[in-house]
Amino acid sequence: MNKLFFRNDYGEGAHPLVMERLMQTNMEHTCGYGLDAYSLQAADLIREKCGQKDAAVHMMIGGTSANMVALSAFMRPYEAAIAAQGGHINVHETGTVEGSGHKVCIAASRDGKVLPEGVQAVVDAHTDEHMVHPRVVYISQPTEIGTVYSLTELRALREVCDKNGLLLYADGARLGSALTCSEATATLQDMAALTDAFYIGGTKNGLLFGEALVIVNPALQKDFRFMIKNRGGMIAKGRLCGVMFLAALEHDDYLAWARHANKMADIVRAGMEKGGVKPLIATTTNQIFPIVTREQEKKLAEQVEFERWGDVDDTHVAIRFVTSWATTREDAQALAGLMEAL
Amino acid sequence: MNKLFFRNDYGEGAHPLVMERLMQTNMEHTCGYGLDAYSLQAADLIREKCGQKDAAVHMMIGGTSANMVALSAFMRPYEAAIAAQGGHINVHETGTVEGSGHKVCIAASRDGKVLPEGVQAVVDAHTDEHMVHPRVVYISQPTEIGTVYSLTELRALREVCDKNGLLLYADGARLGSALTCSEATATLQDMAALTDAFYIGGTKNGLLFGEALVIVNPALQKDFRFMIKNRGGMIAKGRLCGVMFLAALEHDDYLAWARHANKMADIVRAGMEKGGVKPLIATTTNQIFPIVTREQEKKLAEQVEFERWGDVDDTHVAIRFVTSWATTREDAQALAGLMEAL
Amino acid sequence: MNKLFFRNDYGEGAHPLVMERLMQTNMEHTCGYGLDAYSLQAADLIREKCGQKDAAVHMMIGGTSANMVALSAFMRPYEAAIAAQGGHINVHETGTVEGSGHKVCIAASRDGKVLPEGVQAVVDAHTDEHMVHPRVVYISQPTEIGTVYSLTELRALREVCDKNGLLLYADGARLGSALTCSEATATLQDMAALTDAFYIGGTKNGLLFGEALVIVNPALQKDFRFMIKNRGGMIAKGRLCGVMFLAALEHDDYLAWARHANKMADIVRAGMEKGGVKPLIATTTNQIFPIVTREQEKKLAEQVEFERWGDVDDTHVAIRFVTSWATTREDAQALAGLMEAL
Amino acid sequence: MNKLFFRNDYGEGAHPLVMERLMQTNMEHTCGYGLDAYSLQAADLIREKCGQKDAAVHMMIGGTSANMVALSAFMRPYEAAIAAQGGHINVHETGTVEGSGHKVCIAASRDGKVLPEGVQAVVDAHTDEHMVHPRVVYISQPTEIGTVYSLTELRALREVCDKNGLLLYADGARLGSALTCSEATATLQDMAALTDAFYIGGTKNGLLFGEALVIVNPALQKDFRFMIKNRGGMIAKGRLCGVMFLAALEHDDYLAWARHANKMADIVRAGMEKGGVKPLIATTTNQIFPIVTREQEKKLAEQVEFERWGDVDDTHVAIRFVTSWATTREDAQALAGLMEAL
Repeated sequence: MNKLFFRNDYGEGAHPLVMERLMQTNMEHTCGYGLDAYSLQAADLIREKCGQKDAAVHMMIGGTSANMVALSAFMRPYEAAIAAQGGHINVHETGTVEGSGHKVCIAASRDGKVLPEGVQAVVDAHTDEHMVHPRVVYISQPTEIGTVYSLTELRALREVCDKNGLLLYADGARLGSALTCSEATATLQDMAALTDAFYIGGTKNGLLFGEALVIVNPALQKDFRFMIKNRGGMIAKGRLCGVMFLAALEHDDYLAWARHANKMADIVRAGMEKGGVKPLIATTTNQIFPIVTREQEKKLAEQVEFERWGDVDDTHVAIRFVTSWATTREDAQALAGLMEAL
Repeated sequence: MNKLFFRNDYGEGAHPLVMERLMQTNMEHTCGYGLDAYSLQAADLIREKCGQKDAAVHMMIGGTSANMVALSAFMRPYEAAIAAQGGHINVHETGTVEGSGHKVCIAASRDGKVLPEGVQAVVDAHTDEHMVHPRVVYISQPTEIGTVYSLTELRALREVCDKNGLLLYADGARLGSALTCSEATATLQDMAALTDAFYIGGTKNGLLFGEALVIVNPALQKDFRFMIKNRGGMIAKGRLCGVMFLAALEHDDYLAWARHANKMADIVRAGMEKGGVKPLIATTTNQIFPIVTREQEKKLAEQVEFERWGDVDDTHVAIRFVTSWATTREDAQALAGLMEAL
Repeated sequence: MNKLFFRNDYGEGAHPLVMERLMQTNMEHTCGYGLDAYSLQAADLIREKCGQKDAAVHMMIGGTSANMVALSAFMRPYEAAIAAQGGHINVHETGTVEGSGHKVCIAASRDGKVLPEGVQAVVDAHTDEHMVHPRVVYISQPTEIGTVYSLTELRALREVCDKNGLLLYADGARLGSALTCSEATATLQDMAALTDAFYIGGTKNGLLFGEALVIVNPALQKDFRFMIKNRGGMIAKGRLCGVMFLAALEHDDYLAWARHANKMADIVRAGMEKGGVKPLIATTTNQIFPIVTREQEKKLAEQVEFERWGDVDDTHVAIRFVTSWATTREDAQALAGLMEAL
Repeated sequence: MNKLFFRNDYGEGAHPLVMERLMQTNMEHTCGYGLDAYSLQAADLIREKCGQKDAAVHMMIGGTSANMVALSAFMRPYEAAIAAQGGHINVHETGTVEGSGHKVCIAASRDGKVLPEGVQAVVDAHTDEHMVHPRVVYISQPTEIGTVYSLTELRALREVCDKNGLLLYADGARLGSALTCSEATATLQDMAALTDAFYIGGTKNGLLFGEALVIVNPALQKDFRFMIKNRGGMIAKGRLCGVMFLAALEHDDYLAWARHANKMADIVRAGMEKGGVKPLIATTTNQIFPIVTREQEKKLAEQVEFERWGDVDDTHVAIRFVTSWATTREDAQALAGLMEAL
């Protein structure tokens, strides 16, 4: 009756350790709006783990809100973001960046990753005041399609940004998965060192909600709490994020949960390989995009919850499996078995 | 060591019944973004309790976000809201309404309540296309200073709105307190019948976060989920609000919690009366604004957590006590005692 | 000493007939902000010429302002425009559409013209509230590269718009040129019948400034003057546009001036053909895009003012010649001669 | 038959000297968008007259556009302007400042002039990130009701701005009138020295349209042309403003025209005094606000064009007379006679 759940990584509540901490602190009195001791302590911990003692850290309610507030804080009205065609801000945020007044310029990308030469081409094409002025390069680590920027690739992006006076911002909705996958070369400290700002995603890795925005560049830190409030992103019980991030980070469970999700995905990938099912793109993170026939899709759908990603050709479609901290080994193996036998 | 906590009604987590329900449902898989069964069921329950079977109900993450999304959805760019000088949108939301492009026009008010003649005066003063066009009357029930609109007052506002083609919107951050206070004459069904839209506040009455926005007017319902997402107010685990509102509403605990908060405030009010301490304004809801000398304020601050509201004269200040579902009878009595003995 | 001027069609002031009328009326007293008799009369004349007696006509100060005000008036915050990659709003207006909060979605185009199937593809790709909602198809007649939509093509766009609940908006910065070129099949009345709104460009065809926005669709007409003022587009001496459009339109000089510009361009095109110089794209309007070598470009630049359009290959570039009502036959022939002898 | 025209100072076209210059230059070819030699020369001349060789000078199309572009360029999203209740941006610009995302906070004023203590009170009332952050003090010189800031008053505003990290911006729609009235103590150079930015109004003093925005503060100058374009305020034939401002400024006709308008108003004021007609407020600029009975208003309206300003009491109203460069001595004397005999 119950299907295997591989639809997404936000289908459950929070990791039990997170819930436990929320229960423990539930009746404590704290001050509101994220100025409580838990939030401050979580921010300190994040600064420490990032190796950036002067970074500003803000607890945001969700990824879209984090992107919207950050990008609109970092840009003047005529400035624009640069993103990949498939970038989350370009496709799946109902135009929040534009809603804040800013254009999203599309840079050439490969495997979902923005190319430095793509960034340069966008800059070169914007020559005067009759055009927007590109200002922030937006990337996701991992990308929308589960690929991961290597340390070398991040450094190349940093370089093209520096050369052109651009900021580099990383959406880390699934950052844990990128940091712990088998091909990971960039660490959390690298992310902090190479970007002007990025966020550590909580919603998709064990929290009820919440993303920790790390603003490394001091020039971008001023009055940021005004921006959060001005954009409707500040909640009264702001401590919730502090409590949850502390629970996730203080013993590095955050990485453990993400590593678990990746391993569960590895099991599924192994099943696919045995079954000869190719992915749309090779990934080592918690998202897998198998190419199957419409018949196979239909058959799988009887036992598995997943999403259709898109059409590949007349007979094939790409579907998406997502694992999470909550995915059990049994479920992963069951899905691997189905894929092997497809 | 521990001071009595009367600083606000969002200093704790959620009511234990709410936490229990979150724990019970924590590992269930549901779809995201508020389209899950819990959210739908909560919406149904709210429609039923409001007596408005065709109302649209949306779970919002917080009061500022609810106000921002609703008001910007209801107005065209040149249209303006009308509010009291002390209205939350005018003072305490960092300009989110203006941030969405709309002016807030100030109408005359008494005891924190917008006056119908104040609304009419604003309308009359805006005569042509060189001025903004007033469109929505914003009220809070209860108001920022804890006063409550009577049924008669709400009907008078409805009338002036109808006469001038205006919408009536009510911010219900503390709606439970207004519905259950000793002077309450307007019911939840009255709120629904007399406004075009309003929200039932969860954050300040037992939930971790969340406000249930009820859009009664069918003309305002179209594409509202696009608006929520476009303004950064949609979270992935949207079911959390559904689960929490169900816990609060299905046995009318929501009203019980608010009634409790009001009763605890009554205890404090009784102590003030015995001690001859006058309030800045008479209230029957969960906010009290005693006028005390600076000496008294200092003395109280040694034992009680509260906020300074403002200066009254050279020697007196108004302070604010707030009770909540979490305020204990012991604490209320202790504060009453302090006030009596002031 | 004086170079031949083919840089653009806004390098001079106004047509002498327009200046004459401005001089004649200069000392008359009229009311302000476009409610004077001249503006009303010009609007009546435009309605008559468009065959749309119920159209709303507004005098706008410029093309960017007209596009910005119209598009932001026609869309709700989460709605998006659809345009060609090279569309003026997408490239050359410094993000005014995004600055008003709206995304510009790119539809496939051919010869600069938006394809109906491109529109359909954009609509099909936007499936839910996590994405913007396409609402207005933006076209230019003629396009940025001087090509012209045929009547058949406009009807096909109207059809795809009707099928999908989209609005069709035409930027007519150079509308006169499109209406009078040798391949013109769509008349002014066709433009009015097939679009929801469009504007008749004055700046680039004989006026000092000013574009007449024609809003045919009654649902889009409400409170439009509020929108103009709200976006900073209303000037005190609004009558200027009325006076100038009357001068241009009452004896159809507007079309005569545009026809002249096209004919001057024909002369240049003939010279190019004789000289074997190919255009980047074939046009019959007042813009020509010859492909020349860098050597030829340099040589031409000694005698002619023009713009570089872009690189074609390692040795060739495309340049742009623009003719106007002010281009003399002598200058056109001189340029034709240069092109023939290139 | 022809009534005396005292309705406003934008009822005619341009001063004949301005029209003459437009005619002289009409057929010249220049580059577009305000980068032509005339615009650059006008900017140089303005810098010189202001005594600010490093000021940025931009030709804007109108006052509302100038205010909108400047204020939105100078503020971050959560920042607010401070203005008098009757300030033009607060009442007569259809919410353009809010439309750009910024609140207008009201400071106490006297005789239409913002008071330094009013500014300080606004600053003091905005204490944290739950409120907007006041950033720019907006004043008009002269004010909406024709009064003029003295040099002493301007210095006091500058002082309160410096003390609080605020910018001072002056709307100079009728700046000429303020600079040349009998009570003038602040010169153009004072305006430039004491504000961060201000504009010299052309529309209401002899030009067809156009205001010269002077940005004195270097920190506010960056990328301003991007802002103008982004807000729809840049016109193709930008040279028009350059040509017109040159005509007005090079022999100081600008001041002469304004002085003439003031003198014509003096004639009317003298008639009022003889007739015992009191003004609503004493002015020495080109606006006069006589208090008359409704009977008198009706009688005057048979011979004079003017505006009703507002009700004074049950039997009296305030009306408004405005003089301009185009007001003749005959008309002024005729109106003076009417007022004397009222």
